[in-house]
Amino acid sequence: MKVDGVHYRSIRLAADGWSVEVIDQTKLPHDFVIARLTTPDEIAVAIRTMQVRGAPLIGATAAYGVCLAMREDPSDRVLDHAYEMLLATRPTAVNLRWALDDMRGALRPLAPRERAAAAYRRAARICDDDVAINRAIGDNGLKLIRDLAARAKGDRPVNILTHCNAGWLATVDWGTALAPIYLAHDAGIPLHVWVDETRPRNQGAALTAWELGRHGVPHTVIVDNVGGHLMQHGMVDLCIVGTDRVTAAGDVCNKIGTYLKALAAHDNRVPFYVALPSPTIDWTVADGLREIPIEQRESAEVTRVTGRTASGETATVEIAAPGSPAANYAFDVTPARLITGLITDRGIAAASREGLRRLYPEQVSPRRSVV
Amino acid sequence: MKVDGVHYRSIRLAADGWSVEVIDQTKLPHDFVIARLTTPDEIAVAIRTMQVRGAPLIGATAAYGVCLAMREDPSDRVLDHAYEMLLATRPTAVNLRWALDDMRGALRPLAPRERAAAAYRRAARICDDDVAINRAIGDNGLKLIRDLAARAKGDRPVNILTHCNAGWLATVDWGTALAPIYLAHDAGIPLHVWVDETRPRNQGAALTAWELGRHGVPHTVIVDNVGGHLMQHGMVDLCIVGTDRVTAAGDVCNKIGTYLKALAAHDNRVPFYVALPSPTIDWTVADGLREIPIEQRESAEVTRVTGRTASGETATVEIAAPGSPAANYAFDVTPARLITGLITDRGIAAASREGLRRLYPEQVSPRRSVV
Repeated sequence: MKVDGVHYRSIRLAADGWSVEVIDQTKLPHDFVIARLTTPDEIAVAIRTMQVRGAPLIGATAAYGVCLAMREDPSDRVLDHAYEMLLATRPTAVNLRWALDDMRGALRPLAPRERAAAAYRRAARICDDDVAINRAIGDNGLKLIRDLAARAKGDRPVNILTHCNAGWLATVDWGTALAPIYLAHDAGIPLHVWVDETRPRNQGAALTAWELGRHGVPHTVIVDNVGGHLMQHGMVDLCIVGTDRVTAAGDVCNKIGTYLKALAAHDNRVPFYVALPSPTIDWTVADGLREIPIEQRESAEVTRVTGRTASGETATVEIAAPGSPAANYAFDVTPARLITGLITDRGIAAASREGLRRLYPEQVSPRRSVV
Repeated sequence: MKVDGVHYRSIRLAADGWSVEVIDQTKLPHDFVIARLTTPDEIAVAIRTMQVRGAPLIGATAAYGVCLAMREDPSDRVLDHAYEMLLATRPTAVNLRWALDDMRGALRPLAPRERAAAAYRRAARICDDDVAINRAIGDNGLKLIRDLAARAKGDRPVNILTHCNAGWLATVDWGTALAPIYLAHDAGIPLHVWVDETRPRNQGAALTAWELGRHGVPHTVIVDNVGGHLMQHGMVDLCIVGTDRVTAAGDVCNKIGTYLKALAAHDNRVPFYVALPSPTIDWTVADGLREIPIEQRESAEVTRVTGRTASGETATVEIAAPGSPAANYAFDVTPARLITGLITDRGIAAASREGLRRLYPEQVSPRRSVV
């Protein structure tokens, strides 16, 4: 999407044709810095330190890590080493394994001298495929926003609430939850986005607000506690969030706090949609609450906040009572019964085993993997 | 309650016998500073800047504001001016109006020369009454915790979730929501408190965690997004929160985000109780959602976070995308249908018109005021 009028993707080849440029997301929202990555190790550091984050972007970045490795030494040994090293950067990320499997599977049969060029072609295709998938999610979600705008009759903007960052920064372009919003905005539909700040890492306040603002989409940052109140008062027409994993029964694992917003939407009859690329569906899991383990991250993410001081320096402050322990659960699971629909690149499915099967008829059994 | 073994109240007369000492809560949790207030204006600033906060403590502090005014000039004009000036500091706080009405009502009939001494007596009684009321709330809520502890059979602590700060810092002593917790802890019942950090002002992470920690009560700080996940996994036995205003029908106005936790409790059959002193019931209001106006505070509370740096300095950092607007709704209303019971100083009432009438039979009509 656009940053102050100029189109960007979150990852691209540098002008030299071989090194990789990413937006250093740890510097956002205060500095817009392009980081140039020239070795597989630099790629691994970028993923581990969350210079790049978001499932699809992590996969694309890892793919380019394999390219850089093959450019240095296209041997089997280096290919396997790059695979293992990159896979270890974010062990829970499903897209990371998927992209690395795809790269290694394509390169292994080739003669070493063919591998570097083939790797770059394949990484570029992974990126282009992600853009196409997200664009399709956008087109499918756009219809929902169009319908709501028609009901609002131009009297007021369509108010959409989102949680965390499922925007173009989390993907190669467009985003998942934000793709319909960008398409609707670009189509001239008046809309306004309530942006949950998304504690503890503030991806909403820092990233979603940044990308919406740079693209020119009207929005307002709120703390995570506010959404229920807004829905009680008719100030939200639609919720759209992203997801890290959807079960075969339509349960949704996403950033911690998603479940609370889904409860409020259900209680106030606000439609609650989840946007996702098809590979996010984990056909091997049915009951999200019982079967999906929830990652716990370090408690310092809760007790410390990093931002920019008035004098322009980056500072980290302790906000909790000294000595008080903190717990940091990273995700929660929203049961399918609270979800109005799943916006995929294939279309919109009901959040249920039946709804998903209708859209993915080739998935005859919930135990057969899609990827 | 105790701070590292020494008993404190949140407000008291200074050793000079006339000026007022409060704990400067804006300095917590990093510094424990007693602020001395000597004029009605200083009292108003202390309330407005939230050096003191929490409905009962605001009322008690305002009462002492009237004392200081009467000490300077016990005229009708100054009494009325102090009343209006203090009332304007926090327009939504019902206890503020109640305390000011009580003070003016008692002082107006007196000869001016009698007013200062009478004011100090009355303010002291307001404080002592608050302590007695909270102790009674504690005794009534203690039974709930005892029952849960009996069911846990000593195998595990009783897990209690609370939102914001309704502890002794919000009252003169004991607190409302935390009073049963302190009594249970002091009685040797094993318990553990999940403390919602309570954005945007972090009263949970800063104040509730501080007072629980200083008194020795086991607790863990969590971001506001986590409570639903914990309840889904059986990690919460009981929720207890405070309230700023309860309607005649049992709707509860409290810190923003309370409604989301009540929804999660209801969805997971976790008992959700609200602790309150009887004067918090506003018999003139029935439908909380339609009739209670919600205070909006400045957006900088959302976009800026203040804390302590590693080098021990206080710093404020911007966390949101520069230029992104923010909205700051301070309270929400939890409908009575989501509330298991109201823990009052008289006993526990069902959160309904009938439940409240049974406990307050003198309230023959919801339009008749209790105070």
